[in-house]
Amino acid sequence: MSDYVPTGIPGVDEILGGVGIPKGHTILISGGPGSGKTTFAIQFLYKGATEHDEPGLYVTLDEDPEDIKKSMSKFGWDLDKLEGEKRLIFINVSPVRVAPSEKMGLIQLGMKEFKLIKLLQAIRTGIEEVQAKRVVIDPVTIFTLQYPDEIERIYAIRDLVRDFRRTGCTNLLISELRGTGLEREHQFEEYLAQGVILLRTLVTGDKVTRMFQVEKMRGLDVDIQPRPYNITSSGIEVYPTLTVFK
Amino acid sequence: MSDYVPTGIPGVDEILGGVGIPKGHTILISGGPGSGKTTFAIQFLYKGATEHDEPGLYVTLDEDPEDIKKSMSKFGWDLDKLEGEKRLIFINVSPVRVAPSEKMGLIQLGMKEFKLIKLLQAIRTGIEEVQAKRVVIDPVTIFTLQYPDEIERIYAIRDLVRDFRRTGCTNLLISELRGTGLEREHQFEEYLAQGVILLRTLVTGDKVTRMFQVEKMRGLDVDIQPRPYNITSSGIEVYPTLTVFK
Amino acid sequence: MSDYVPTGIPGVDEILGGVGIPKGHTILISGGPGSGKTTFAIQFLYKGATEHDEPGLYVTLDEDPEDIKKSMSKFGWDLDKLEGEKRLIFINVSPVRVAPSEKMGLIQLGMKEFKLIKLLQAIRTGIEEVQAKRVVIDPVTIFTLQYPDEIERIYAIRDLVRDFRRTGCTNLLISELRGTGLEREHQFEEYLAQGVILLRTLVTGDKVTRMFQVEKMRGLDVDIQPRPYNITSSGIEVYPTLTVFK
Amino acid sequence: MSDYVPTGIPGVDEILGGVGIPKGHTILISGGPGSGKTTFAIQFLYKGATEHDEPGLYVTLDEDPEDIKKSMSKFGWDLDKLEGEKRLIFINVSPVRVAPSEKMGLIQLGMKEFKLIKLLQAIRTGIEEVQAKRVVIDPVTIFTLQYPDEIERIYAIRDLVRDFRRTGCTNLLISELRGTGLEREHQFEEYLAQGVILLRTLVTGDKVTRMFQVEKMRGLDVDIQPRPYNITSSGIEVYPTLTVFK
Amino acid sequence: MSDYVPTGIPGVDEILGGVGIPKGHTILISGGPGSGKTTFAIQFLYKGATEHDEPGLYVTLDEDPEDIKKSMSKFGWDLDKLEGEKRLIFINVSPVRVAPSEKMGLIQLGMKEFKLIKLLQAIRTGIEEVQAKRVVIDPVTIFTLQYPDEIERIYAIRDLVRDFRRTGCTNLLISELRGTGLEREHQFEEYLAQGVILLRTLVTGDKVTRMFQVEKMRGLDVDIQPRPYNITSSGIEVYPTLTVFK
Amino acid sequence: MSDYVPTGIPGVDEILGGVGIPKGHTILISGGPGSGKTTFAIQFLYKGATEHDEPGLYVTLDEDPEDIKKSMSKFGWDLDKLEGEKRLIFINVSPVRVAPSEKMGLIQLGMKEFKLIKLLQAIRTGIEEVQAKRVVIDPVTIFTLQYPDEIERIYAIRDLVRDFRRTGCTNLLISELRGTGLEREHQFEEYLAQGVILLRTLVTGDKVTRMFQVEKMRGLDVDIQPRPYNITSSGIEVYPTLTVFK
Repeated sequence: MSDYVPTGIPGVDEILGGVGIPKGHTILISGGPGSGKTTFAIQFLYKGATEHDEPGLYVTLDEDPEDIKKSMSKFGWDLDKLEGEKRLIFINVSPVRVAPSEKMGLIQLGMKEFKLIKLLQAIRTGIEEVQAKRVVIDPVTIFTLQYPDEIERIYAIRDLVRDFRRTGCTNLLISELRGTGLEREHQFEEYLAQGVILLRTLVTGDKVTRMFQVEKMRGLDVDIQPRPYNITSSGIEVYPTLTVFK
Repeated sequence: MSDYVPTGIPGVDEILGGVGIPKGHTILISGGPGSGKTTFAIQFLYKGATEHDEPGLYVTLDEDPEDIKKSMSKFGWDLDKLEGEKRLIFINVSPVRVAPSEKMGLIQLGMKEFKLIKLLQAIRTGIEEVQAKRVVIDPVTIFTLQYPDEIERIYAIRDLVRDFRRTGCTNLLISELRGTGLEREHQFEEYLAQGVILLRTLVTGDKVTRMFQVEKMRGLDVDIQPRPYNITSSGIEVYPTLTVFK
Repeated sequence: MSDYVPTGIPGVDEILGGVGIPKGHTILISGGPGSGKTTFAIQFLYKGATEHDEPGLYVTLDEDPEDIKKSMSKFGWDLDKLEGEKRLIFINVSPVRVAPSEKMGLIQLGMKEFKLIKLLQAIRTGIEEVQAKRVVIDPVTIFTLQYPDEIERIYAIRDLVRDFRRTGCTNLLISELRGTGLEREHQFEEYLAQGVILLRTLVTGDKVTRMFQVEKMRGLDVDIQPRPYNITSSGIEVYPTLTVFK
Repeated sequence: MSDYVPTGIPGVDEILGGVGIPKGHTILISGGPGSGKTTFAIQFLYKGATEHDEPGLYVTLDEDPEDIKKSMSKFGWDLDKLEGEKRLIFINVSPVRVAPSEKMGLIQLGMKEFKLIKLLQAIRTGIEEVQAKRVVIDPVTIFTLQYPDEIERIYAIRDLVRDFRRTGCTNLLISELRGTGLEREHQFEEYLAQGVILLRTLVTGDKVTRMFQVEKMRGLDVDIQPRPYNITSSGIEVYPTLTVFK
Repeated sequence: MSDYVPTGIPGVDEILGGVGIPKGHTILISGGPGSGKTTFAIQFLYKGATEHDEPGLYVTLDEDPEDIKKSMSKFGWDLDKLEGEKRLIFINVSPVRVAPSEKMGLIQLGMKEFKLIKLLQAIRTGIEEVQAKRVVIDPVTIFTLQYPDEIERIYAIRDLVRDFRRTGCTNLLISELRGTGLEREHQFEEYLAQGVILLRTLVTGDKVTRMFQVEKMRGLDVDIQPRPYNITSSGIEVYPTLTVFK
Repeated sequence: MSDYVPTGIPGVDEILGGVGIPKGHTILISGGPGSGKTTFAIQFLYKGATEHDEPGLYVTLDEDPEDIKKSMSKFGWDLDKLEGEKRLIFINVSPVRVAPSEKMGLIQLGMKEFKLIKLLQAIRTGIEEVQAKRVVIDPVTIFTLQYPDEIERIYAIRDLVRDFRRTGCTNLLISELRGTGLEREHQFEEYLAQGVILLRTLVTGDKVTRMFQVEKMRGLDVDIQPRPYNITSSGIEVYPTLTVFK
């Protein structure tokens, strides 16, 4: 049994030492809006389920699973079929406030407590149901925002990462990048995760450039150089031999 | 029935994969003062009502509908006529403090509670009245400022976006961009909306350049490169084959 | 009766579509110290009173009217004469703490409540007294500083702008620009006003350059390019066909 | 009687329209540490007392008058003599905590309330004592720091400026510049004063350049271009026909 | 007995005056995620234990010792063997919340008090157990975050450094660098430690460059120029004769 | 008796008008970690004691005197000998928490009140003991951090500077520079001290450059241009005729 989990995403495994993500590790995928974070994560689960016999669990803290499935259908991925075959499972743990029977779905806004224990139990249940080997939490930002105190936030993320380690699954935490520039403040999640992949979208006046970069990958020799990538009709595609600005 | 809603704005649909905005999605239109955000939104509703048989609802949180109609008349759009034909409806949900009978309209200033429930009910009523298929909220900033707590603000916007999803309408949320530079902090609305279009006005010493950019568009292959645009005598015009700085 | 109010300031009306400011609109004039904001405003009132039969009201929140009149006399504008002919009126609504009979005018400092109602009543009285068609508030910053809470501040300015709209007057709100660089944060007043004119003074090491820019002008096709301007012996002069850095 | 007060500082009056500071105005002199602010102020008083028959008052809020006199002696200015002749007077209104009889002058530190009324009375007394026509407050920063609330601070400075206006004296307020770069935030004092002169010290890696700039001067046509200056053996010297970086 | 402790890391001792770290000093190793901080620290202990007869103590405040050992095995370092021979000891003082008997290790999140006294006692016990001469704390950030008050934080770190001094051990404190740019704010730890080594990862658009820099080294003549480094299959390798951008 | 105190540090007195620091003045020495601040201060005291018959007092607020003496020994300065001859005295006023009899010196951390009065008394005692003419406080940062309120902090530093003035000694206050860039915020200490010397370490990608700069020196004509400096085997050496970037 290999110690590495191939992502199956074109170009990525070449950058990850030719092998993929170290098995059981928790990797942070950080990018701006429109950078393809969700596409990357779904692609990782899809490839796992269809090519590597590794069922996947997708935990959404924000968006409706049906919306995700629908917008991913343009890549030709039949996620409903995978779900039917118990090779993929979506869990929606985003707080719900709507009364589904109400005609237009009008909602009463107010603060809702995020149930962490419920999140962890849902993950456990989901993993057991499909014998998941790959897990995605999208976005982890909703989770960390619960902790205004920095030291508590660090402990919470660290405990989450530790808990994941025990499941034996290989995991992606999707994180939202705040700044758009090259110079930025590191987020503490980058220190707590075992790997960090950045999906950046640099705007330089007349041009937008997508830039894939492995910032950190514990236990693996990786190519740390930034590489161009695209979102094509078949998903994310990274070009491991090109440089960003030719 | 098509899955996409053409904006009808010259150049924009070409950039949006040749088809327009995915039907039922909620798109953030973010720009600075004078960038043409309101023009873009009205043009979207006008084209929908006159060319695609999609009635529109314009929810204003700030400006008087009469003022908007008047300043839009220079583009040759007869909005009063559309309203008369029930193909367009304006709803003013901005808090009102004036006593209309008072001679000069002097007002007593003080904090007014923004009634969110009233906003949602007004939207529902407006949609029903003209069978609206396109909705605009201008500006959503007034709405988000109600929530000083970040996590509450995220939940509120997310719930608003979800609620919109149920109406089947295609929606624009108009948002005010704070910084003027290319490097900036992403706003959480950019993550919550299903699409983000930026209308920027870059000032580079001796020149002002208008720059249109699709930052994000779920479920659609789009051109993410920045493109020049103008506000002409017939409204917004984007040039999908030009680059910003030639 | 025309829908536009010519400013009469050399070069400005050319930039404003050849016609001037849309009648009844409220325009923000924003600039740094020494940029000529007050000169611009007085020139606008002076031209209105002497050339367009539009009496003016100047509301000062900060400086003494006598000081303003004196420093404006170098441009050859006889403001006392205009006041005598009821074609111009100055109202000083800045909080006063001095006991005028006291010998050297020593003052007792302490926090004074700014009476907004008094401001609005003063404006109403002033407009009626000279049948004013043009109004200036200088500076609006003193007004907005009263509201430390952002949402209250937005409501207050918005209500002020709305109230102005009812008077039928064309108005200038003088605002103080904080930063000196080209990149900056937009102020919420820029969104609330119907037009925004920037008077900037860029310092580039060995040279100071004055730069006039119409950032926004609702209901009007304007030249948004930055243009050089000067403060000459006859007031502000903008050069609508030159670029800032030749 | 002229309406202008010549500074007598080489190069400065040329920049100030060939005449000097408008009589009775209050001018902000803003500069970093070592930029020569105090030298500028003393030189202004010295020239007034010795060449224009205008006695001067120097109000120090920070440094000991003896120390100032001593460090100014290197420019050949005999300030003690002027004081003896009642053509110059120093007033020390900095809070004192020392017991002068105590051997080594050890002090008990603790918060001391700054007595503003005492400041104003001291100024009045000082002006009367030498019939001062020129007044300096150095540094005004100590004064403004008393007011943590921004609106109170603005009122306090404004009241101080107004009070000065009544004395008929021409005044310099010495202010400490915080940032070292060309781009900076304007301070509210710059709006409240009738003139602003900047004494900057730009550090560009291998070179320090002193830059004199009149940012604002109400009621006067001035040269707003930055000009090089030096602190020579006879005081400040500005070069009105040179550019900063040749 | 030498006064210096060779790090044994290729290139580093050359930069450290040819001798290494002054014996008994506490050195801050500061770097971003993926910069090789932990690799550097383990390499320092490994070389000490295997080549200089100096047993080592590794205090982890964050990560599980087993995870560290596993990810370091790729460099060919058999840390388990060293532990068995009492030449190396790992102490895990990170707060633990899991119930090890529970099936999936689900945790109850909540704030845990960090026991400083326990940390110090653990260090003392660890040093005694293997007669350690080299100590690493990774990361010290977890420790400093306990003290929100800046002056308390400074005292705490200072006391920790002092306490270390008494043990006679040579110590590395691993610290997380927040910003990614060359310009940054110094952290107070850099003043309190006796030496500071920076491991930076500069991203310049199309290229990532690793940069090793000795910022400070008390009591030693060092090369302060930045030098390129790499993480090779045998650990950190610094190139003391190359410049970063050739 | 001269009015100036030669520093004896190669190159520095040339820059200081050929004479040195004005006698009795208090000078701020500000620099980053590893910039040689302590070396500069000790060198100043050493030269005074050995070449100018001016005994020195070194007040440490942070580091142990023994550690300082040891790390300074590499420059060939026998500080113990000077102490024995009563030409130099070290006073350690840093708060102590250790129980010296305890085996490993484990400490109980907690907030300690900094006794200012004790600091002043210690300084007085120290000056008397060796008849000190030169005094160093290292670092003054520990002192200023005691005062979170800005106005209190200014008063405290000002009082400290005044108190020093009465002793007749020439003094150095060592201060920690926070930012690493050329553009920075001035610290209030720079205004309160009578002189300011900056020891900067500029990092420009591939090169570290040490830059000595006299920002301010009351009562003295100085060279304000930045000059390169080095820490050599005999201490600080400034090159008064070279420019930083040749």
